[in-house]
Amino acid sequence: MVSPAKTDERMSPESLAAACVSVLRGVGCPDTVSRTVADHLVMAELRGQASHGITRLPTYVARVKSGLICPEAVPRVVSESPSTVLLDAGSTFGHVAGKQAMELCVSRASATGVAAVGVRNSTHFGLAGVYALQATEQKAIGIVCSNAAARMPPAKTRTAVLGTNPLAIAVPTRSKYPILLDMATSAVALGRILEAQRLGASIPIGWALSHDGRPTVDPAEAAKGLLLPMAGPKGFGLAFALEVLAAVLTGASVGQNAGSMYQSWDRTEDLGHMFIAVSIEAFIPLETFLERLEDLSTQVARAQPLEPGERAYLPGELEFMKEEENRRLGIPMSDERWAPIAQLGEVMGLSLRRRAASVAVS
Amino acid sequence: MVSPAKTDERMSPESLAAACVSVLRGVGCPDTVSRTVADHLVMAELRGQASHGITRLPTYVARVKSGLICPEAVPRVVSESPSTVLLDAGSTFGHVAGKQAMELCVSRASATGVAAVGVRNSTHFGLAGVYALQATEQKAIGIVCSNAAARMPPAKTRTAVLGTNPLAIAVPTRSKYPILLDMATSAVALGRILEAQRLGASIPIGWALSHDGRPTVDPAEAAKGLLLPMAGPKGFGLAFALEVLAAVLTGASVGQNAGSMYQSWDRTEDLGHMFIAVSIEAFIPLETFLERLEDLSTQVARAQPLEPGERAYLPGELEFMKEEENRRLGIPMSDERWAPIAQLGEVMGLSLRRRAASVAVS
Repeated sequence: MVSPAKTDERMSPESLAAACVSVLRGVGCPDTVSRTVADHLVMAELRGQASHGITRLPTYVARVKSGLICPEAVPRVVSESPSTVLLDAGSTFGHVAGKQAMELCVSRASATGVAAVGVRNSTHFGLAGVYALQATEQKAIGIVCSNAAARMPPAKTRTAVLGTNPLAIAVPTRSKYPILLDMATSAVALGRILEAQRLGASIPIGWALSHDGRPTVDPAEAAKGLLLPMAGPKGFGLAFALEVLAAVLTGASVGQNAGSMYQSWDRTEDLGHMFIAVSIEAFIPLETFLERLEDLSTQVARAQPLEPGERAYLPGELEFMKEEENRRLGIPMSDERWAPIAQLGEVMGLSLRRRAASVAVS
Repeated sequence: MVSPAKTDERMSPESLAAACVSVLRGVGCPDTVSRTVADHLVMAELRGQASHGITRLPTYVARVKSGLICPEAVPRVVSESPSTVLLDAGSTFGHVAGKQAMELCVSRASATGVAAVGVRNSTHFGLAGVYALQATEQKAIGIVCSNAAARMPPAKTRTAVLGTNPLAIAVPTRSKYPILLDMATSAVALGRILEAQRLGASIPIGWALSHDGRPTVDPAEAAKGLLLPMAGPKGFGLAFALEVLAAVLTGASVGQNAGSMYQSWDRTEDLGHMFIAVSIEAFIPLETFLERLEDLSTQVARAQPLEPGERAYLPGELEFMKEEENRRLGIPMSDERWAPIAQLGEVMGLSLRRRAASVAVS
């Protein structure tokens, strides 16, 4: 999403996290909450998924100030059974609720084999994949989904009913990177449309409709309009099933009733998420699993390329490579992207200075 | 898939099931096994998914005769924990293993909240959705996936690595039909390509590649070639994650090693499946859930159509409508589709006569 940046337009992950933490603490977020949210935003930046990175911070801050994100709230258990828990997040940051929910989920799964933890009354939780990856650290398979503010119409209609509900599935491996599928159920993420708008480019038919239902190649019209599901009715059907798991089953606001972090200023978002962890050792020995997965991954790696020099990538591989590059070189941070953060700091009396791979926080 | 049939080309579901049962008993399948497989094939026919219907019967019979489907095998427990079971199907019919696995899964989920049952050493199990629907009868949400013989290449390659791995998610409702997402992860099912071939029609670019990796509009070339994933890398990524759950984790043959019911005549298929059941009442009261789901479904139903007279359908709604129609009028059964079944009967010394909505079995 982000254009290549010169080296002197990069920041170290630590300094970017420190800047985010001071902004969040500046609006009264507890230390651990500030740290969790900052780490998530930095992870999104590292992985080249800037649409879920610091660009969200000004809106998070505004929602905290408006009392629509409650950073002091502690998720509480609504109901539980041996393999399931339902949490009410009390409108804390979705990142905090999500992290806690997956921790709980992996712990239950290690006792019973598989577990599911639902969350209601939550807020935008960023990248679903980050929570799925948590499970892999404990040698479990992680599955995560969420609902989101309505942007996608059912086939043959022009009314947004579902969000671009994400699905993430992460699998531990014995090679360098875990497997990570992390996808929106829309044809493309809103971020790609906004990027086309910024570049003055047109978008292909099939990505979006205008607000009144016309196919459009104009990203500005698309941004205010409807996002089309991936793969037509299959994508909408998958988004519907994920909405059932994440929102209908958890007691969160459903479909058009889900709040938007950008548009709902008279109410909390009340989003819902579902976290599932599957213990590998409940099925087969871990080493056997890892060996079998390596066989499958090798089959993908050995697939004959269509063009010389090309090759297949495993799910998530490109993002892990990007993360590695950005950890080495620093996170790309153009003036344009840094300005809103600097401005936030200024308003709050913080002096957040961007330096080549460093930031000074006073 | 099937062209509209005249009324006198229809059969009652009972008579078609009876014909399938006598064929299966004729090759030595136990009564309950014959019944389970026959019911599944008839259900596929009722729902208009003829590609998973009686067209498969001659190959099933050939595989039983060759000892590659073992209809007397009883699935046995390989490992278990409170919420999980791993079954070895012993190469019995996938339909039998699948039915038993989901029964077990729903029963565990009712005790612990969520359960996962994996199956290895299985065979083609037909429609994934049929097993997902089993869960809804017990007021649980059912999730089913399977691997399959390799047909799909990773992006930018021309080597088949994964099958068109299906995913089904079924949800109980209080209206007429359950919700049922039941999709292959390929752009289209092989059945649609074979149907185009039968009609002498061309297929759109994006459905398939020739065996050497060229985009093709020729269904004959496509049928011998590669099927493209739905939604590009997202579809392949989803198929990969499903392969991990259904095959890597269960100990079934993985990726290119999975057997084909049509091509592998020197070995069993050794397919894997994964069944997950989520108890609704572990999260919220059933009535609350059903009311909330009705709200979401109403939002879909009320979406503004793009064209007058059109409307949105819920996942699975069209197939349930087709099933209802076919239960009323009989299952469409052209001479062309009936002939292989009649021939099977002839070889086996059975006289399977097709009559308008009736069949006589001697």
